[in-house]
Parts: sequence; structure tokens; C-alpha cells
Amino acid sequence: MDIRLDKNAYGKNAIHLSKIIRHPDRHEIRHISVNIALQGDFETVHTIGDNTKVLPTDTMKNTVYALAKDHFTTSIEEFGLHLADHFLTNNSQVSDVTISLTEYCWQRMTFDGVPHPNSFVNGGSEKHEALVIQDRRKTDLSAGINDLLILKTTDSGFEHYIKDKYTTLKETSDRIFSTQCDITWKYDSVPPDPGQRYKAIRENLLHTFANHKSLSVQHTLYAMGDAVLKTFPDIKEITLKMPNKHHILFNLEQFNIKNHNEIFIATDEPYGYITGTLTRS
Amino acid sequence: MDIRLDKNAYGKNAIHLSKIIRHPDRHEIRHISVNIALQGDFETVHTIGDNTKVLPTDTMKNTVYALAKDHFTTSIEEFGLHLADHFLTNNSQVSDVTISLTEYCWQRMTFDGVPHPNSFVNGGSEKHEALVIQDRRKTDLSAGINDLLILKTTDSGFEHYIKDKYTTLKETSDRIFSTQCDITWKYDSVPPDPGQRYKAIRENLLHTFANHKSLSVQHTLYAMGDAVLKTFPDIKEITLKMPNKHHILFNLEQFNIKNHNEIFIATDEPYGYITGTLTRS
Amino acid sequence: MDIRLDKNAYGKNAIHLSKIIRHPDRHEIRHISVNIALQGDFETVHTIGDNTKVLPTDTMKNTVYALAKDHFTTSIEEFGLHLADHFLTNNSQVSDVTISLTEYCWQRMTFDGVPHPNSFVNGGSEKHEALVIQDRRKTDLSAGINDLLILKTTDSGFEHYIKDKYTTLKETSDRIFSTQCDITWKYDSVPPDPGQRYKAIRENLLHTFANHKSLSVQHTLYAMGDAVLKTFPDIKEITLKMPNKHHILFNLEQFNIKNHNEIFIATDEPYGYITGTLTRS
Amino acid sequence: MDIRLDKNAYGKNAIHLSKIIRHPDRHEIRHISVNIALQGDFETVHTIGDNTKVLPTDTMKNTVYALAKDHFTTSIEEFGLHLADHFLTNNSQVSDVTISLTEYCWQRMTFDGVPHPNSFVNGGSEKHEALVIQDRRKTDLSAGINDLLILKTTDSGFEHYIKDKYTTLKETSDRIFSTQCDITWKYDSVPPDPGQRYKAIRENLLHTFANHKSLSVQHTLYAMGDAVLKTFPDIKEITLKMPNKHHILFNLEQFNIKNHNEIFIATDEPYGYITGTLTRS
Repeated sequence: MDIRLDKNAYGKNAIHLSKIIRHPDRHEIRHISVNIALQGDFETVHTIGDNTKVLPTDTMKNTVYALAKDHFTTSIEEFGLHLADHFLTNNSQVSDVTISLTEYCWQRMTFDGVPHPNSFVNGGSEKHEALVIQDRRKTDLSAGINDLLILKTTDSGFEHYIKDKYTTLKETSDRIFSTQCDITWKYDSVPPDPGQRYKAIRENLLHTFANHKSLSVQHTLYAMGDAVLKTFPDIKEITLKMPNKHHILFNLEQFNIKNHNEIFIATDEPYGYITGTLTRS
Repeated sequence: MDIRLDKNAYGKNAIHLSKIIRHPDRHEIRHISVNIALQGDFETVHTIGDNTKVLPTDTMKNTVYALAKDHFTTSIEEFGLHLADHFLTNNSQVSDVTISLTEYCWQRMTFDGVPHPNSFVNGGSEKHEALVIQDRRKTDLSAGINDLLILKTTDSGFEHYIKDKYTTLKETSDRIFSTQCDITWKYDSVPPDPGQRYKAIRENLLHTFANHKSLSVQHTLYAMGDAVLKTFPDIKEITLKMPNKHHILFNLEQFNIKNHNEIFIATDEPYGYITGTLTRS
Repeated sequence: MDIRLDKNAYGKNAIHLSKIIRHPDRHEIRHISVNIALQGDFETVHTIGDNTKVLPTDTMKNTVYALAKDHFTTSIEEFGLHLADHFLTNNSQVSDVTISLTEYCWQRMTFDGVPHPNSFVNGGSEKHEALVIQDRRKTDLSAGINDLLILKTTDSGFEHYIKDKYTTLKETSDRIFSTQCDITWKYDSVPPDPGQRYKAIRENLLHTFANHKSLSVQHTLYAMGDAVLKTFPDIKEITLKMPNKHHILFNLEQFNIKNHNEIFIATDEPYGYITGTLTRS
Repeated sequence: MDIRLDKNAYGKNAIHLSKIIRHPDRHEIRHISVNIALQGDFETVHTIGDNTKVLPTDTMKNTVYALAKDHFTTSIEEFGLHLADHFLTNNSQVSDVTISLTEYCWQRMTFDGVPHPNSFVNGGSEKHEALVIQDRRKTDLSAGINDLLILKTTDSGFEHYIKDKYTTLKETSDRIFSTQCDITWKYDSVPPDPGQRYKAIRENLLHTFANHKSLSVQHTLYAMGDAVLKTFPDIKEITLKMPNKHHILFNLEQFNIKNHNEIFIATDEPYGYITGTLTRS
């Protein structure tokens, strides 16, 4: 059988860009990282080293900085849409553009209740993500949260599961539930204010997590996805990746001490990894 | 429209296991990490918190350690196949099992040319990967190398590419080419000795990388995949992910010093990211 | 000359412990990591392998979990003091105990202004640190903040520095100043409420950083340390480590675009590293 | 009491530089990272923002690249000595220069026993370190190995230690001993060929580790340091930091399987941390 090139892509990753947006009374700081991937008519690039169709990844990087001046003024979703359009419009050899953007979280400092005009502190591990996939016919926009680390100290149990000869886990009706999750949703169409929408979905996700009577990670994962799809009709699909951050009850009884769900070993590995997609039908 | 559960999976990740294999004259040390993911009849787990079909991820972990005693004796590919079969056979609610395994690299210490019977030193960043995907009808086996960091100091150029108004990169016929690559291939069927096969493919990949006259990363990526497919007829597909580790010529001329391709800035970000799959048709 | 054992220590590191503190109306979650190091009469342990004076590091770990039940009820400083005292009192072969503790940051979730009783979200990269060094005569207590990532968009310049033949940096009266700093201070004596004190010092540090007209990193470092020593008379010394997180003005002029301090390259390496200790005399 | 500036330093860290050294028949690739720290007459820099004595860290970076052309031709020790001398000679306001250098490990590819002239593969986690501390009177040179990950499958036990009420560890006369160690030694004077010397000391360390009948980590740490000091009379002091990489026997007996020291849990945290310095008297 003949050998042939199948799916392929190339681009620049980890283009870290920061921007100061200057308002009369205060500054905003935005720090993002952009990944670009192009697909298209690149067979001879691979087979014979013909570079005449290759836009260098270095040029992609320059383009991101150049376009940020006028086009990164609101959400990363809107900047991503502009970048995708730019690369597709200006490169006839390209069939598909994928732009993924990550925004890091800065919180304005506040002193005695007064927000400071130009000083910020890191706002946590979580990142706002946007993903634009555009071809000659359509544009798909997704957004999400990465590394959202959340924890609840109660309203979580895990019981009535299968027991076999390798089972040692004890059932519990009250445990710590913590996960550092990545959550992504697909929009039917671009929402009016994607940055504001992101905040509303984040709030919705946290609210479900906090108030759900959890019988398992899967159970809460579904509840979180279900609530988002019910609240936001223009979201067609949501995927939740919820790795467990285990807090394991320490065996104090071996030292004749009672452990009423107080003292835990916090451990990173191994970890349960639960993923699910909810969609509409 | 109704909301429904689409693709979902759960399991245990990062099960780190080491094993001493004791031969009369020497020991082997094996250090692996195992990820397990199950798919199947799990809708009610999500929707109503019915755990009666859930094999806990903690039990999966115990099972890996228990089965390693008798069944992790040769390659990670063979151990993965055994694990997949075990979980599928013993769990009628499961339709698909995915086992991915990573083996870390230890090199036997050698003194004055004599291999030491029981002492080892870390063998580099690269890891041997195996992936088993099994359902009720078939089993797919893949293997690969992750984090293989390679570099050549010449026989690599990048010229004749598109120039536009954002181009600042200079053409070069001689540059450093370095990449920390992830490479995965799919087997038609399980090869007789997957561990030995892994070594042969790794050697083949290095040989092509070292001796190719590279006109671009894509050009070398294709050559590497092509050589593997030509040499090993039972491999049906190979995917190469080749992020650039850039070594950028430092501008010494600004200090009236010539830089004849000698002094470079080694930088991690941003980085070119080139991926491609070669298959047969 | 004879060979002899000089300074040595051993212990357990990265003992990750979480605790739920249960109040009638709400839960607190605490997540800490503890490092223990013992020094003392350990020469024969090293020279002849006499373990009869060795308290195993595994036992240290168990001890931390066991004592956390009754003695980790307020600040990590107070828990550290208890641990140091425990190991010194119970191990006559030990001359010096060092306990270092890290507390990770959780923020209570709030919905419509109402704090949730038992749900939390990760509170940022920064960590609260405490260090207890105790010998048979005295106890030294330090505390600090690690990985405090802060940024200001103005009121920072860097001018009038030395120029030599390798200078390419341009002077600027207005730049981004960002640093991921580690700050440690030594107490004269244990303050009444070390947890509350930590918050007050953190606030003081942020306030100085935000409002200082910075002529250099050193200039602001000194101002931050100076303000803490002036405000808190029982602090005898403060050390600030302030690695620069550079945001470098991108050269948009090469594309005929003005860059009025708007668009920056955010970069991790290389980075300026500025450290200083302020004390009293 | 008055507040005053105590110990302080500033400089550039993580200056990543690669160099191709071109021989007629082959290339060498060197990849290093350099940290520079200056101390001196910098009080007014801190107190009033007087930058006239400040050599910018950006200039330090440029200087490293510029001097590498002619002065980084052999070992990192010799390049470090040159850099220290350069900064001290050219900056009268500086009293002390600290240069620390890290060299990453590349191994030449070999095919059918023939070394390839210009292709390399990552040589492992370990790094060669050099440290130069120079003031107006003297120069101190240290070197070392960082992240040297080693393991032995036998000839290691841990018995006869203290038992108390928190002891759960079982004694063993045969266990896995693994450590990812950092080892640093101080030279009396600069050895004739520091690069060659580094290799000889590394070999010496591995040899002792491999062949020692270990009664504890401390016992082997001492033996390793002792052998280096005995073999190399111009080394005046050696410090070994040996964090345990624990491989914990998995309890297979709970499943009615014998575990004859075969199957282990490989775990990163918590970990024993053993450090010691050997010197001459």
C-alpha cells in the first residue's frame, strides 16, 4: 500500500502577550497566551520540502502582537475570531484555522474598599479559554475554564458501588470532594458579550457544585453540565473533565484517636479521572 | 431539545508501579505509570447517582498492583493487553476499556565496561508509551515515545517561505533543529516482541532525524514517518508531534562580533508546533 | 587531614495534610504541607550505620497527622511551634528541630453576597509560610508569603543606569512592574494571633507596592521592607526576593504601528532577580 | 532602632545559551543556563532610587552571550571564572560576584557503533553545576551534579531504629533505595581540567552508591562523600542532598498474593530528605 500524509497542522504555540487598556480613571491588565494552527494544502511541504506555501510560525507570532493593538480590546473570544479570519483571508493555501487562547486571571487590588487604579494580584490557578475553529464555510466558537480548583467539605458521598476481590475502599456518606477541572462549552453562535457570558457560566458551575447533594463525581458532573445547558439555550454542548484531588481520611484509630472526618491526607497521585459530555438531542 | 449524556469515561490515572524482576545474575527495575478509563452503561450513574454499576477507581488501582505480579513480566504493551481484557471480562456493564501505560527509562550502571547487577541511573526524559483500546469486538494496540528530546547542529534550513508585512524572520540554510517530540504508531496486530520492536522503531526514528537534509520541520517529520512505515509493514499509521525547541541566533554583530552560527539563545516559548499523521492507502 | 561529618539534617518533606474545622454554621478547610528536619547526635548513623538514634521519617509523618487533630486548630505558626516542641522533648538525641509549613489558599464561595457554608475555590498562587527553628535554648519564629504574584501598570521606571558597550536596554519612565515574590520576616517573639498578623503584613506589603513611585525594583523592595519594619515593631528582620516577571514592549514600530506602552511580550526567562534583607541596628 | 539595608544582591537568572563548537570532523553542542548576582555599594539604589551604580540585568545577559564566543570554549567552571572576573574588573561599585552555571546533558547519537558527527539525544535529568564566588581578595570554585536520579534494587536496608507510639513502619533488610540527589563540592583551587574532573567525581559517586551495603540513606551519603574526599585531595568539602524517591512495598497479602519484594508503589510525596556535609579537619 502507498504511504500518504493524513491529518496535519502547524503553527505557533505559547505566544504570551500582555496589554494595558488605559481608561481615564484606571488601567486594565490583560495577559493571554495564544496558540495558532493552520491546516491546508501542505502536502508538498512535507514530501519535497517546498516552503513556498508556508507562512512561518514566527510571522504568526508577529501578527498576533500587531493585531492585538486594534483588535484585542474586549474578550479573547472576539480576538480569536479576528485572528482566525485574518489568517484564513490572507492565506489561500489554508483551509482551516484553529486559534486557542488562554487568559490568565488578575484581580485588582483593593484598599479599604477602594479599588486601586493600576495594581493587581494574581487571581488564582483558573484560566479562561477560548477556541475558534474556522474553515471556508463556518466558524465554531467554544469557551471554557481550565484548572478551576474547587472543593466542598460535605454533601458528597460514595456508596453502593461494585465490590470484588480487589476492593478495599470503604463506603462513605460524607467525604471531601475536590477537583481541578477543565470545562469547555460550544456556542451555537457568538454570544453578545462573551466575556460577560464566561463569568455567568462560571458562576452557574460553581453554584451547582456547591449546592449539589453528590452521590459520585459523575453525578455532580452531570448536574453541572445539565444546569448550564438549561440556563443558556445557545450552548449546544458542554464537556467536563473532573480529575479528583483526593483527600483520604487518615487512619488515626491506629493511634487510639478518633477521626471524625477531620484529618486527611491530601494527595495528587493516583487520581480518579472522570469526564463527560452533555449535549442536546 | 432534550439534554442527554454523550461520550463519557472514568478511571484511575497515574498509578505508579515499580517492579523488580529478579534474574539469577542480575535484577531489572521497571517503573511504569498506568491510566485506566472505562466506558459503558453509565447513564444512570450520572443522571440519578446509581453507583451499582461503578467499579471504584480505587479498586482499579488495586487490580493493577495485584495483576502486575504475574502479568507484568515483559513489555508494557503485553501488560496493557492483559489489563484491558481483565476489566472487560469482569465487568459486563463496560463496553470499552482504554489502558495507557508509560514506562520510565532506567539505564544499568556500568563500571570499567562491566554492567552492575542491581544499580541504575535515570535514562533521560523520554518515555515508552503503550495504548490499548479494547471493546467487545476488537483490540487496538498503539505504542510510542514521549518527550524524546533530540537536536542536530546542521543539515537543517528554512528558506523560500511566504513573506508578508509582518515577516521579520531571516532565511537560513543552516540552523539548529531541536524538538521534544511525541510519536505514536498503531499496530495492525500485536508484534511478537513489542519491547524489542519499540527499540527498533526508536532507532529508525533517530537515524532518519540524524541523516535527513531538512528543509523544514514538516519535511523531516514526513521523512521520519515514511521510513518507519516502509520498514515495518505491520504498522498502519504513525503520528508525530514535533514542537520546536528554538535556538535563536544571538545578534552579536551589534557588539561588532561575528556570529558564525555559534552562539544561540535557547528558548522554550513561544514555540513552533508541527504535527502530522502518515497512513497507508 | 581527617575527614569528618559537618552540618547534617534529616526529616520528612511534603507531608500534605488537610483538615476540616467544623463550626455550627460553616466549615473551614485548611490544606498545609509540612517539612521536618532534625539535627543532633547523628554521627554514628552516618559513619557506621547505627540506627538506634534514628526516629524514622515515616514516624515523623504519622506524628504530624496524629498531632494535627488537637494542635492544628489556629495558625500554621502555632502548629509548627507545637511540632518543634514535641520532637525536641521526645528525642534526647536531637539538638535542633526545624519545622517549615506551607498553607495553601482557599477562598469561600459566595453567591449573591452570601458566603457558602462548605464550598471553596482556589485562592491564588500565593502561599502562607511559617518556619520554626528550635534548639535546647531558644525558638525562632519566621513567617512569610511565597509565590505572591503582583503587577502594576504604571508608577514604575528605570533610568540613569550605567551604560557600557553591551548595553541595549532603553531607559523608560513608565513600564510594567511585575514580580512573583517570596517574602519572609522574623518575629522577636510569637505575636498574639499569627494568622491575623500575616494578613496585616500582606496588606501592608501590597499597599506599599501599589502606591510606591518606583525608580527600580530595589527601590520598591526597600520601601516594602521599610514599611513593614516601621509598622510592626516586633519584626526584627525582613527578606524580600523579587524575581522580575518581565513584560517587554513589543516593537510595533517595525510594522508602522505606534506602541504607546500598550502591547508587551510577557516572558519568564531570563529574569532579573533582586533580593534584599532589611534589619534594625 | 534604625532600619538599615543588610545583605542584598541582584542580577539576571536563567540566561539560556547554546553554542555549537565546530571541529573538523564533528560538532559539539553545549546548552547552559547562567545566573549572575552582584553585591556591592548599592545602598542608595535601595534607599533613594539612585541608579547610577546599577549595571542593568539586561546588560549582564548581553555580556554573557558576547563573552561566550571567545571564552566559553571548555568547561562551565572556566567560563564562570571568566565571567566573574569580567564583572568585578569592570564594575568598581561591585564587591562580590556570584556566577552559577548549569549545563544540560546531551549524548551523541551512535548508529552501529559509529558516533554521529552532529546529532544528539537528551542525556538524562542530571545537570552539571558550577558556582564561582569572587570578591576583591579571593575566588571560590564549587561544582556539582543536580537531579542525579539513581536507584539500587538491593543492598539496602533500614532496621533497629527508634520505635514510639506513632511508629508503623516495618523494618526491612532489603529494600529499593532511590534518590534524586544534588551533590556539590568545593575545590581548594581550580583543577587542571574541570570538565574531566566532573566526570571522574560523578563516576566515583555512582560507584560508591552501587556497591555500598547501605544500612540507611545517611550511611550511604557518608560513604559517598568520604570516597570523594579520599580520592580527590584538592576537594575540601562535599555536600550531598539526598531526597528519597520512595518505592513502598504494596500489600498484596490482603489479596492472598505473596509479594517477595517484587511489586512497589512508586511515590513522590511525602519524601525523606537527608542532607550532610563532609569536610576535613
